Amino acid sequence: MLFQRVSKGVVTIASGSWTKVTCKCCFTDAVRPLLVIELNKDVQLETKEWIISKIEAPANKQGAQLLAHPGEDDDGDMILVAAPSCTLLRNAEALGLSKAYRDGTMLAFSYPDRANFKNADNVEELLTLAEQQYISKKELDDLKAGTNESIPGCSKDKGSLYPGELIFQKLEKSGIVKTMYPLHDKEKLSAFSKQWYSQFNFGVQPLDYIHSYFGGTVAFYFSFLGFYTLSLLLPAVLGAVLYFLPWNSLNGQVLLAIFNVVWSTVVLELWKRRSAELAYGWGTLLLNSTFEEPRPNYRGTMGHNPVTRRWEPYFPSAERKKRIWFVSTPVVCAFLWLTVMGMVAYFYLEWCAKDYYSREPSWLAMPLLYLPSVLHILYVDFMNHVYKTVAHMLTEWENHRVESDFQKHYTLKVLVFSFINCFAVLFYIAFYKQDLELLRKRLASLLIVSQIINQVTEALVPYLQERFLPSQGTKQREADPHIDKLRAQGCQPEYPGLFAEYIELFVQFGYLSLFSCVYPLTAALLFLNNVTEIRTDALKICKLFRKPFVAPAANIGIWQTAFEALGFVSVISNCWLILISPQVTGYCQENGVSFRYALLCTIALEHVLIILKVVIAFVIPDLPKWVRIKVAQLEFRSRQALKTVA
Amino acid sequence: MLFQRVSKGVVTIASGSWTKVTCKCCFTDAVRPLLVIELNKDVQLETKEWIISKIEAPANKQGAQLLAHPGEDDDGDMILVAAPSCTLLRNAEALGLSKAYRDGTMLAFSYPDRANFKNADNVEELLTLAEQQYISKKELDDLKAGTNESIPGCSKDKGSLYPGELIFQKLEKSGIVKTMYPLHDKEKLSAFSKQWYSQFNFGVQPLDYIHSYFGGTVAFYFSFLGFYTLSLLLPAVLGAVLYFLPWNSLNGQVLLAIFNVVWSTVVLELWKRRSAELAYGWGTLLLNSTFEEPRPNYRGTMGHNPVTRRWEPYFPSAERKKRIWFVSTPVVCAFLWLTVMGMVAYFYLEWCAKDYYSREPSWLAMPLLYLPSVLHILYVDFMNHVYKTVAHMLTEWENHRVESDFQKHYTLKVLVFSFINCFAVLFYIAFYKQDLELLRKRLASLLIVSQIINQVTEALVPYLQERFLPSQGTKQREADPHIDKLRAQGCQPEYPGLFAEYIELFVQFGYLSLFSCVYPLTAALLFLNNVTEIRTDALKICKLFRKPFVAPAANIGIWQTAFEALGFVSVISNCWLILISPQVTGYCQENGVSFRYALLCTIALEHVLIILKVVIAFVIPDLPKWVRIKVAQLEFRSRQALKTVA
Repeated sequence: MLFQRVSKGVVTIASGSWTKVTCKCCFTDAVRPLLVIELNKDVQLETKEWIISKIEAPANKQGAQLLAHPGEDDDGDMILVAAPSCTLLRNAEALGLSKAYRDGTMLAFSYPDRANFKNADNVEELLTLAEQQYISKKELDDLKAGTNESIPGCSKDKGSLYPGELIFQKLEKSGIVKTMYPLHDKEKLSAFSKQWYSQFNFGVQPLDYIHSYFGGTVAFYFSFLGFYTLSLLLPAVLGAVLYFLPWNSLNGQVLLAIFNVVWSTVVLELWKRRSAELAYGWGTLLLNSTFEEPRPNYRGTMGHNPVTRRWEPYFPSAERKKRIWFVSTPVVCAFLWLTVMGMVAYFYLEWCAKDYYSREPSWLAMPLLYLPSVLHILYVDFMNHVYKTVAHMLTEWENHRVESDFQKHYTLKVLVFSFINCFAVLFYIAFYKQDLELLRKRLASLLIVSQIINQVTEALVPYLQERFLPSQGTKQREADPHIDKLRAQGCQPEYPGLFAEYIELFVQFGYLSLFSCVYPLTAALLFLNNVTEIRTDALKICKLFRKPFVAPAANIGIWQTAFEALGFVSVISNCWLILISPQVTGYCQENGVSFRYALLCTIALEHVLIILKVVIAFVIPDLPKWVRIKVAQLEFRSRQALKTVA
Repeated sequence: MLFQRVSKGVVTIASGSWTKVTCKCCFTDAVRPLLVIELNKDVQLETKEWIISKIEAPANKQGAQLLAHPGEDDDGDMILVAAPSCTLLRNAEALGLSKAYRDGTMLAFSYPDRANFKNADNVEELLTLAEQQYISKKELDDLKAGTNESIPGCSKDKGSLYPGELIFQKLEKSGIVKTMYPLHDKEKLSAFSKQWYSQFNFGVQPLDYIHSYFGGTVAFYFSFLGFYTLSLLLPAVLGAVLYFLPWNSLNGQVLLAIFNVVWSTVVLELWKRRSAELAYGWGTLLLNSTFEEPRPNYRGTMGHNPVTRRWEPYFPSAERKKRIWFVSTPVVCAFLWLTVMGMVAYFYLEWCAKDYYSREPSWLAMPLLYLPSVLHILYVDFMNHVYKTVAHMLTEWENHRVESDFQKHYTLKVLVFSFINCFAVLFYIAFYKQDLELLRKRLASLLIVSQIINQVTEALVPYLQERFLPSQGTKQREADPHIDKLRAQGCQPEYPGLFAEYIELFVQFGYLSLFSCVYPLTAALLFLNNVTEIRTDALKICKLFRKPFVAPAANIGIWQTAFEALGFVSVISNCWLILISPQVTGYCQENGVSFRYALLCTIALEHVLIILKVVIAFVIPDLPKWVRIKVAQLEFRSRQALKTVA
């Protein structure tokens, strides 16, 4: 289904072949609707028309320079939005996307020089669907009210706008716009989705398709997941060999501890290189940082932004710091305390259970021994859930101006908590109790239980839902066969984002790098888990949720740092586990080595491993050679261009 | 003395008032000679004329777009070079220098928008003398030969040029150009130099003058030196109090060890902020990285550069890596081994001396006890010297293509060696011998001896030389009163650069942060040393050496990392010194605490201090708030500009 611009300003839907459309400044072979704006049912026609006029107005009239269509009825609750190529291309330049130049190399796209880029005449080929949708969304988000403007068809109170207010934020806050979502392209999706989530195609995901269809951050998540899963093969095989072979008892734990430290460093470094290759191929390696608009939930008294000099809500950063230090920090600490208390309760209960069992040993009382563990795992899971909600509320209340600050503070809160919540017990067992047998049991039950929970909630439920229950969208479609297929997409639940997925990976990477030397099967179990994880995540994003708006990305961002930080902690825990391993303590006793000497050696080993980590990170270049040459070429060319222009 | 452009292409020296000059594309109120090219005496007139024509040719004829004057005689051995404002301004844009905009804020200079910058009509005000000289030098360095060109007036062999060869590199290699140096401006220099190096103006150096006269890296060196010296006041006072007060013995060493770790972290973080403020004020905060031309000494078979596609010498990086790993690394290791052997010899000698003294104690044999120390200090100094020469030769032989790679490898070599050479003995005494008394004695003698050597070689000799011996330049001037004053500047020795100065700071920062807790007077001694150091360094650059070409800089570069790395090592050494301090060992013995427990506590302290360091570095923002807002404004404006243009 396509738009047809019949005369200036009027666009109708033309189903069937692609139709020529001319915008005020460019000529586009065809446009298609990229996203849907769903309005409230009781929105006035004049409000809808005003929104459409804003969307279609050119930049010099503070419009979004997009194409809008009022859906089936002029007064219906839907606006379809498409984008002319000039708008898309100008934004591609502003974002700093690189595209294939005439001579085949990737070059930062330049609107004035657009004729020299491949597919310059066909924006559908030049920009991916995800990029087009992201740019259109960004244009809408950036729409600002002029002076003395207000939303027509609204009460004065509800429709008032201050100059420079972000229009779509206001529309969403006042409930006029219910939701916005990018549209699926079923044809494109089916071209790769089946192969992605249902066939057995080990390690080879259709990454380029994923990138062009779903966009940067999603593609990077799946690339990282695939890369990490593949790299689990080596520790999985090594661990299985050590676990099952008779010379297990020899030096397996020491070997595995050192292997883990080196492996985690090398994998993260190699991922950086892989990530740079992908980003180069996707044209996002040299992305511009965009100037961020305030978040929708940002509140404050009106004032002048010191940077832009615009009149907008202003919230003093001193006040925010107060909130962070005097409210958020204590609350976070309280949660950490609750977690530690939960751990104490767990150990007490376990002691009770053992005590009871030792007094009245019976076949029936056996499960009682496992009850505290299971209870605690459930408690941890529950706390995790509650804390995330609280952390989100707190971060919201801290009132960060831009989304990236919000994300940073939220991520930090959740990471600290996840770390304590998931690993405190294991650290306690390893460092304080120094009971390796218990650590092994605990790790095994954690991996197996969380694996089962994970598979059930993430795989089985969606599978059954998809298989046996018709989705909400399908139901509605059947009830009213005339309703636009588009609407069905809007009925799907919103995509929950990648945050939870990354936290899951963070936790399992922690199990592996921090403690897996006492339980060599860890990597193999995680490998199995991730092979299904890829498929369930793929199924979720393709079928079960609404398509998300996804920004272009150059890497996995803050998560790289989080994983690397875990790598440093893993040096400490692995060295400690070496020190208290039966192999080392046995050796010390046999040869009369004092604990003092063994401890000093361990500290030396710790420092050597940390230096080794730093050296490995330094020796492996972050960019592969060919990418470095390409980037140097690119910079050289733009410098040459600057000279010529000047 | 100024240039006067009489008719196109011809420039004469006009002494006295500034004279109007018009270049092909711009109108400059006045130009003055910025640098001198000294030719070999036997250079042919036609060669000199060819060089001048190259210097004056416009960019589209592959010239340097500068103004040249043949000195007193047309066939003399000198060329004076000046720069028209258009050349200077275009290069200012290419370098990414920020300048004051009409509204007072700093903005990346833009040549097309030059009219809106303050002092746009007066390049002397807009660009500093150092920037003008650097730009002129860069234009000369970048001069490339055209196709089928050769140096006239030379033998065919000597004068052949391949297309794209860097002309001035060739001229210097073939001995046609003896040297190039920027000219002093005695008036400007005397305006601030006296106050700088001779008056007692504690902590307040005329930094802005230094920056505009000498340029970026020099100004940053002196700023860092001043900042660091000032920040020494706190540990100097604290150390002196602990040293002289009776409660010295209490917990002084423990207190000072922890103080040292925190102090070094905070100082380096605050320096980053200070450095950003300076860079903002000097317009170098957002410098462009320039595309570097090959080094003069880069050799190789001719080939196509993969980045620029230019025809130039090419040396495969695999071959370079072979040289680094199979020659340089073993040689460096051999030197490190020699250093350690020297240390062993020192301890052996000291043992001998003590043995002798215990057998035949006499007043005369007393000095013998100090002989090994003095000998070893001299050996260390000697090795330092030899190694630097060898390291330079090796790095030269590794054949790095660009100067920054060369500097990186050379700096790394020298840093590793300096670290071992200066600190190995102290580490040996602290960690292996665990003899705090010896460590204290050693540190005191190192500080005092090196201070004396330093003052004599760096301060007294130049002072006496300046005072009593007429400099070479002055002598020559007296012998031939007609000789140009300019020539006198060329007779001064070349400025040796800041590398040795930074290494000196690195070593003293090491003494302070690694070991000073056992000898609390360290900071006070270093403070005294640095107060004179600032003055002698200032005297050297102002009076005793030829003026150097200095690049604009945004910070102290790699040295920040080197000092920060030292900070991490200092955590280890300070924790260890706490562990073996008499206070802690005494406490352990009194209270029956096992060594094992004390060791575990120390390790915990080490990890806490490292986390504290990381947290401090994270909590103190790298840019002060006002600089952050300015930078955000700047980025916002350039983004707005991009939108308007597009």
